[in-house]
Amino acid sequence: MEFWFTEHHTSGVNFSIKVDRQLFSAQSEIQRIDIFESKDFGRFLAMDGNMMLTEKDEFIYHEMIVHVPMAVHPNVKRVLVIGAGDGGVIRELARYETIEHIDMVEQDELVVEVCKKYLPVTACCLDDSRVDIIYQDELKFVRNCHDEYDLIIVDSTDPFGPAEGLFTKEFYGSCSKALKDDGIMVNQHESAFYNDDAIMMQRIHKRIVESFPISKVYQAHIPTYHSGYWLFGFASKKYHPIKDFGSTRWNARGLGTKYYNTQLHIGAFALPNYIEELLRDVE
Amino acid sequence: MEFWFTEHHTSGVNFSIKVDRQLFSAQSEIQRIDIFESKDFGRFLAMDGNMMLTEKDEFIYHEMIVHVPMAVHPNVKRVLVIGAGDGGVIRELARYETIEHIDMVEQDELVVEVCKKYLPVTACCLDDSRVDIIYQDELKFVRNCHDEYDLIIVDSTDPFGPAEGLFTKEFYGSCSKALKDDGIMVNQHESAFYNDDAIMMQRIHKRIVESFPISKVYQAHIPTYHSGYWLFGFASKKYHPIKDFGSTRWNARGLGTKYYNTQLHIGAFALPNYIEELLRDVE
Amino acid sequence: MEFWFTEHHTSGVNFSIKVDRQLFSAQSEIQRIDIFESKDFGRFLAMDGNMMLTEKDEFIYHEMIVHVPMAVHPNVKRVLVIGAGDGGVIRELARYETIEHIDMVEQDELVVEVCKKYLPVTACCLDDSRVDIIYQDELKFVRNCHDEYDLIIVDSTDPFGPAEGLFTKEFYGSCSKALKDDGIMVNQHESAFYNDDAIMMQRIHKRIVESFPISKVYQAHIPTYHSGYWLFGFASKKYHPIKDFGSTRWNARGLGTKYYNTQLHIGAFALPNYIEELLRDVE
Amino acid sequence: MEFWFTEHHTSGVNFSIKVDRQLFSAQSEIQRIDIFESKDFGRFLAMDGNMMLTEKDEFIYHEMIVHVPMAVHPNVKRVLVIGAGDGGVIRELARYETIEHIDMVEQDELVVEVCKKYLPVTACCLDDSRVDIIYQDELKFVRNCHDEYDLIIVDSTDPFGPAEGLFTKEFYGSCSKALKDDGIMVNQHESAFYNDDAIMMQRIHKRIVESFPISKVYQAHIPTYHSGYWLFGFASKKYHPIKDFGSTRWNARGLGTKYYNTQLHIGAFALPNYIEELLRDVE
Repeated sequence: MEFWFTEHHTSGVNFSIKVDRQLFSAQSEIQRIDIFESKDFGRFLAMDGNMMLTEKDEFIYHEMIVHVPMAVHPNVKRVLVIGAGDGGVIRELARYETIEHIDMVEQDELVVEVCKKYLPVTACCLDDSRVDIIYQDELKFVRNCHDEYDLIIVDSTDPFGPAEGLFTKEFYGSCSKALKDDGIMVNQHESAFYNDDAIMMQRIHKRIVESFPISKVYQAHIPTYHSGYWLFGFASKKYHPIKDFGSTRWNARGLGTKYYNTQLHIGAFALPNYIEELLRDVE
Repeated sequence: MEFWFTEHHTSGVNFSIKVDRQLFSAQSEIQRIDIFESKDFGRFLAMDGNMMLTEKDEFIYHEMIVHVPMAVHPNVKRVLVIGAGDGGVIRELARYETIEHIDMVEQDELVVEVCKKYLPVTACCLDDSRVDIIYQDELKFVRNCHDEYDLIIVDSTDPFGPAEGLFTKEFYGSCSKALKDDGIMVNQHESAFYNDDAIMMQRIHKRIVESFPISKVYQAHIPTYHSGYWLFGFASKKYHPIKDFGSTRWNARGLGTKYYNTQLHIGAFALPNYIEELLRDVE
Repeated sequence: MEFWFTEHHTSGVNFSIKVDRQLFSAQSEIQRIDIFESKDFGRFLAMDGNMMLTEKDEFIYHEMIVHVPMAVHPNVKRVLVIGAGDGGVIRELARYETIEHIDMVEQDELVVEVCKKYLPVTACCLDDSRVDIIYQDELKFVRNCHDEYDLIIVDSTDPFGPAEGLFTKEFYGSCSKALKDDGIMVNQHESAFYNDDAIMMQRIHKRIVESFPISKVYQAHIPTYHSGYWLFGFASKKYHPIKDFGSTRWNARGLGTKYYNTQLHIGAFALPNYIEELLRDVE
Repeated sequence: MEFWFTEHHTSGVNFSIKVDRQLFSAQSEIQRIDIFESKDFGRFLAMDGNMMLTEKDEFIYHEMIVHVPMAVHPNVKRVLVIGAGDGGVIRELARYETIEHIDMVEQDELVVEVCKKYLPVTACCLDDSRVDIIYQDELKFVRNCHDEYDLIIVDSTDPFGPAEGLFTKEFYGSCSKALKDDGIMVNQHESAFYNDDAIMMQRIHKRIVESFPISKVYQAHIPTYHSGYWLFGFASKKYHPIKDFGSTRWNARGLGTKYYNTQLHIGAFALPNYIEELLRDVE
C-alpha cells in the first residue's frame, strides 16, 4: 500500500506527499478540514483540500509573516490577525512582550479546535491572555474597525471559496481604515511562478497598491506551497520595509528564529526581475 | 491517458510533471538521456532519470551560476566550464564580450548533440568561436591545469553516478590549482531542505571550505529542483562575493536578465538561519 | 525518475503502467497514436490516450474475438473486419486455411503503418494474400454491403470519438444486411463493472438485440482493460453460440491457443448474475 | 487535493483508488489495519497495506469461495473457517440453514472488531448463534482437529507475513486430517497473471495437489485484486467439483446471489490455457 496526498500546483504539475495515516477529517459549516501524518513533513493540515501547513516547514511562513513587519514598526501594541486559526501567527506574535493585545478573527471555530488537538506545536499560544479570538466573518469585523491597530496580519486561505472576500478592494480599504496612521498590513500574497498563480497575484497586488501609499512584496522559500516559492505583501501608510527597518532594535530582542534574520529581511525584498515585472505591470 | 514524469525528491515526496510526449531517449556510454515535452515546463532534459533542466525555469539556474561570479571578478578572460553540456552556462557567459576564451569539459558528447537538437534556446551558443569543447573526463582534465583560469564553473549532475568525482576534495583542490591567484570557482551546491539532501550539501561544503580561503553559499528558487530551493557555492582565493561586488560595473554592462539583478545578488547570500547552521556545522 | 502511463478507469480509479520509454507519438488525421515500452506489459499502443493493446495480454482479446465465432459457424469463407488496424484479429483469422477472403476496413492508415513497425507480433499477417485492407470510413463501407459475409468482426475503439458511428443502431442494421443468412457478427462490447461503463454496455446491447434475432454476450479477463473484465457480443441470424458450437470440429483443427479452449468457450457465456441483470434490463 | 490509495500489483503496475477519507488506522499485535472510504468502491479494508476487500466487489469473492463447495457437497453440517475476520464468508455460510456449526479461527481479534464497526454489510452475521469465533493461531488449531469438518474454507491473507503458515504443506496436511472422508477444502489461491504471482500460485497448487486426491482450481473476476483475476482452490478426498455438482439441489435452495449461479459454477472451472499450463507444470 501507498497512500498519497497530492496537490495540483497546476493541471499538469503535482506535488505529492506519502501519508502514513489520516488523523482527522470533518466538514465544518465553512469548509472541509483534514489532518494527515507523514514521515517527511510530519503532520499537515488541508482545508478544502488545499495544503495549509506542515509541521516541517510552517516555521518559514509564520516567521516571515510576523517578524518582517515587527522589525519595521517600532512600537506595535495592538494587532489584528485575520484567519490564522492554526495558531502559527499567534505563536510568533506572542514572543513579543511589548504587544499588549491581539484580536484574532477566524470564521471557523472547528479549525481552532482541530489545530489545538492535532498541531499543538503550531497552536501552542492560542490561549495567551492577550489574545481575543472572535469567531465571525472577517470582512464584517474589519468594516467596523477605525484607527485601532498597529499591525494587521492577513493569514487567509486562497482567494476562492471561504476567503474570497479577503482579497477584495473593499477589504483592503477596510484594513487601511482599521489601522492607525503608522499601521502596517501584511498579507499572504500567493505564488507567482505558474501563469495562473501569477495572474491572481497581480490582481491582489493591484488592489493593495490602490489602497496603501507604500506597498511592497517580499518572498520566502516554502517547499509545500506552489512552486516552493511564496510572496507576502507589506502595505503601510508610513513605514518603508527597508528604509524604516529597525534591524538593531530587532536583534536586541534576542528572539531565536529558524528562518528569519535581519540580513534575510533585506534579501527578502530583493525580488527576481520576472517578479518585479509582474508587479510593475499593475502598479 | 495521462503520462507523467515523476521525480522522487525523497522516498515520500514526489514532484510530477504531466508529459505531452517523449522526444528522445537513449543510453550513451555514460548515462541515460531523455527529452520530454510538457505543457507547463516546455521541454525538459533528464539524465539517468534526474531532472536536469526545463525550458521554463532553466534561466534561474544559469543566470545565478554565471552572473554572480561575473559581477564580482573585475576581469574575467579565461573560463573553465565543467559539465554543462546543455549549453546554458555557455549562453550566459557568451554575453560577456570581455571573456576571451572558454574551455568546456564534458564527458558525454551525446548530451551536447541532443541539447543542440532539442533544446536550441539553451544550447544556442555552443558554437561561439571562443568556446573549446573538450570531451574528456573532467577530473583528469582539471588535474593538468595550473594557474590558467579566472573563473571555473562546475555545472555537474548530482554527486552520485557519473559526476561523483566532481564532489571530491581532490577535485576542488585541482580547481584551486587551476585558477589564477584571484580566480573564482562557482559550483552547483545541491539542495538542503530534506534531511538526506542537507547531509550531502554539508559534505560538499566541508570539502570546498578546506580547499579555498573564501567559501560562501548562495541561494535561488528553482521550482523543478528538490524542494524548489537550490544552493550554489562561491569559492575564491581573493574576492569576497559581497565586499568585492561590482554592482555598478555589472549594471553598466546593460545585460538584460530575467532573474538576476544586483539587489538580488546581495539577497542571495542572505541565507535562512537553518541553512546557516548547517553550513557552520562543517566550517 | 519514474515515467508512468495512467489510464482513468473511472474518475476515481487509475490503472498505471511504468513506462521505460515512448517509442512513437503522432497525430494522424483521425486520432493521436502512441507506442510505449514497459517492463511488465512489453510494448503497448494507445489511441487518443486510451489503452488499445499490450504485447503481454493482447492474445486474450484477439483469441476471444476470433475463435468463439469461428468455432460456431461451420463454414466461414468471407470475413469483414471493422477497425483492427493493429492486425491482431487478422493474425488469428489467418490461421484458418478455410477462410478465403478478408476485407478489413480501417479509417486510419497510420495505425496500420505504426503497428507493422512497432508491434510486429500482432501485425504479422496484415500482408496475407487473402486480406484486402480498405482505408475508408467503416460506416460508409458497410452501408454498401449486401449478403456478402459469413462473419463480421467489429474491433472498434471506444464508443466516443472516431468510432462513435460503430455503436449506432444504423451500423448494426447495416452489418446485419451485410451478412449472409447464417452470418455472425462479433463485436467488442465494452466493460460493465463500473457504473458508467455498465450504462454504455447496456446501450450497445439494446441496439444489437434490436438488430439480430440471436444476441448473446460473453466475457474474458483482460487485465489492461477497465476492471480487468471485458465483454464481447455474439449476434447472429441463425447460429446459437452454445447450441451450434462445433467443439469437436474446432479441436480437430489443432490450432494452439494460449487463452481460448472449447471448455472455456462454454464458460465464457456463463455470466455473473449482475451482468445478466444488466442485459435483461435492455432485452 | 487528491488522496489516493495505491496498490502495487507489480513493481511497475499500480492500481489506485481515490479516497474520500480514512476511517480507521491501527496497528494490532499482528498487523496494520486500515479502513478507507471511496466513491467508487465504498469502504475498503487494507491489512498490512494490502487490499483485502471493498464494499463494491467483495460479493464476488465471498460468493465464489462459499457457494462453489456448498453446491458440490450434499450435506455440509460442520464448517471450519480459517481467517475471514471480515465476516464475508460467515455471511454467505449463514444463509444455509442446514449448516449446524461453524468454527472460525482468526488470529487477530481487532480485525473482527473493526469490521463489525466499519463494514457492517460484510460482518453482519458474525454473531450468528452457530458461529464460534476462536482467536488463536490457525495453524495450531488445525493441527489438533481430526475427522471433524465437512468443509474447510481458507480465507487467508497473502502468503507472506502473518498468513505464511497457511500456505505450507503441513497446513494443507492438517486440513486434510481435520476433514471427514468426504470433506472439501476451498482456499483463496492467489492470482496468476503477473509472473511473480504465477510462481507463488504454482507453489500453492503443488502443495495442495500433494495433500489431496482431487485438486482443482477455479476462477473469478475481482477488479480490486491483482490483474482483476483471482483463483480459488477446490481440494477434496471424494467429491469432484463438476461431476458431483448438485446444481438442481442448489437452485432449489432459492438463494439469491449477485455473482454466482450454477452455469457460472461450471464455467469457473474452465480455465484459460495459460493457467492450465501453469497448473500442469506442478501437478
